[in-house]
Amino acid sequence: MSVQTMKWGILGPGWISSKFVKDLAFAEGAELVAVGGRNLEKAERFAKEYNIPRAYGSIEELTQDSEIDIVYVGTLHPIHKDNVLALLRAGKAVICEKPFTMNAAEAREIITLAREKRVFLMEAMWTRFLPPILKVMEWIADGKIGEVRMLKADFGFDIGWAPESRLLDPALGGGALLDAGIYPVSFASLIFGGAPSKIMSSARLGETGVDEQFSLLFEYEGGRTASLNGAVQLEMVNDAYIYGTKGHIHVPNFLFGKSAYLHPKQGAAESIEDDREAEGYSFEAEEAMNALREGRLESSIIPLDETLAIMETLDTIRKQWGLRYPADE
Amino acid sequence: MSVQTMKWGILGPGWISSKFVKDLAFAEGAELVAVGGRNLEKAERFAKEYNIPRAYGSIEELTQDSEIDIVYVGTLHPIHKDNVLALLRAGKAVICEKPFTMNAAEAREIITLAREKRVFLMEAMWTRFLPPILKVMEWIADGKIGEVRMLKADFGFDIGWAPESRLLDPALGGGALLDAGIYPVSFASLIFGGAPSKIMSSARLGETGVDEQFSLLFEYEGGRTASLNGAVQLEMVNDAYIYGTKGHIHVPNFLFGKSAYLHPKQGAAESIEDDREAEGYSFEAEEAMNALREGRLESSIIPLDETLAIMETLDTIRKQWGLRYPADE
Repeated sequence: MSVQTMKWGILGPGWISSKFVKDLAFAEGAELVAVGGRNLEKAERFAKEYNIPRAYGSIEELTQDSEIDIVYVGTLHPIHKDNVLALLRAGKAVICEKPFTMNAAEAREIITLAREKRVFLMEAMWTRFLPPILKVMEWIADGKIGEVRMLKADFGFDIGWAPESRLLDPALGGGALLDAGIYPVSFASLIFGGAPSKIMSSARLGETGVDEQFSLLFEYEGGRTASLNGAVQLEMVNDAYIYGTKGHIHVPNFLFGKSAYLHPKQGAAESIEDDREAEGYSFEAEEAMNALREGRLESSIIPLDETLAIMETLDTIRKQWGLRYPADE
Repeated sequence: MSVQTMKWGILGPGWISSKFVKDLAFAEGAELVAVGGRNLEKAERFAKEYNIPRAYGSIEELTQDSEIDIVYVGTLHPIHKDNVLALLRAGKAVICEKPFTMNAAEAREIITLAREKRVFLMEAMWTRFLPPILKVMEWIADGKIGEVRMLKADFGFDIGWAPESRLLDPALGGGALLDAGIYPVSFASLIFGGAPSKIMSSARLGETGVDEQFSLLFEYEGGRTASLNGAVQLEMVNDAYIYGTKGHIHVPNFLFGKSAYLHPKQGAAESIEDDREAEGYSFEAEEAMNALREGRLESSIIPLDETLAIMETLDTIRKQWGLRYPADE
């Protein structure tokens, strides 16, 4: 028996949407019916490239396409809130790219509406759904490394000095924390099962006023810690290490989750290599479609309360640095 | 022309001294003449094993051996201060194992006496003298990785649950910070050329009251950071990564400094592999002997002011945790 088909719309015909769309071909039961954006020409070009039936030059048209079950939001985060509110009001299920919103207040607003309207909403934290990451969580749940005591995870890349880039533009929510930092911060939330009890942080605020790099030290009950670093001006080795009382797990380039290595102090080492053909965005799409088929309103892998808590953590960190965005005013 | 011979005494016939003594054979111009400790039998056994002419059952006898030019102090750190004071008073040059003392007050006391008496004194931070570490500093000085922006360095091992171990005994200055943490903390001081402007930290204080693991976040001017972790109850991957604006350096198992890898963003990668026969303690011995021959009172590689600043940093961190030793009272 084949699964029930879900009809997808794409909001934001840009770089990340193109990656998502390519992977949607690997997600069983996904049918791509429309793409929309503020620029019709760009939407049409995107539709042609990815063989999508309809292209729209406004979000209104996308929301009015009655065939669409679920929309992937791949726009820039400063407009996520407005995008998602419009889609939810039209009754469209949504998965929205990270950072989910500019701050916790915005996240709270869209989560509240999703719950009021009883419409599915999920942060597109694709890393969490990758088989090697699921295997990591299984190893931990099975006690393979004992009690988790320490996490290290980084995501840093270097765009060079590009003040015109959105990544360095405060008006566009630029900075390393929201763009790169969301990965290690979300990973810490996954591994420790919640928010830190104490947040310590440092940032290099550059000429444009946003954080070019950051370092975080999260403390959890019992002196457990996460050391997380990120940058948009430093090319880093983006591995994660999870240390437990009985061994450790190494996840090379953790946010892409292609492999993971279990190093127990006793017993046999284990590993997982994922030679998936898709880049990895198909798994989150499948989770969203399964939720719709089962009538679930959110994902248990990345629940909305956790998404909100993560945004609150990011707010706390930015407050420590005195970094405010227009959306915070 | 052969170099002037320096006559060495060893204080503390234990594990670390045996490693030092084995390496002293690789240090040109070193002659081992005596070993002393509180237990004559143990000193005699050590003398026999390493073919040392004289063994003493007290520090007094060692200080009175007029032939000795310089003493290596390999005792436990709670007695470093008294040991070093006695040796300096007798006019013996000293290199003293790390942690140098229990706290900054003790370090200040022995440094002050060394300067008053104009006797050579040096912290035995052997890692700094290793060829791969010197090469790392050369790469940095040559601008190979541009401006250094971020450091990561860990030293964690697992002694298991051993409350009887000195490593977990507060009376003996136990805990991960002083024993393991001194390496990443000293390395950060080396890389950034001084003390951090802000110190953030977290520790897991165990049943015996000392830190079983710790995480540090040091901030330096301009939002540069060091993320440092350590443990005596977690086996960690003890690598260092130094990130700069033009590339990064990786030092596997950094405190043993057997190799280092330069990864510039542009230009050719470089590396150094040190296949030294000695474990690596001979280099610090050579530095000390050269200093004596040249009439220098301290090492420029690990100056006393820096040793003191590092002890002050360790004090600040312990204060943040509320971890006090008997020596602090």
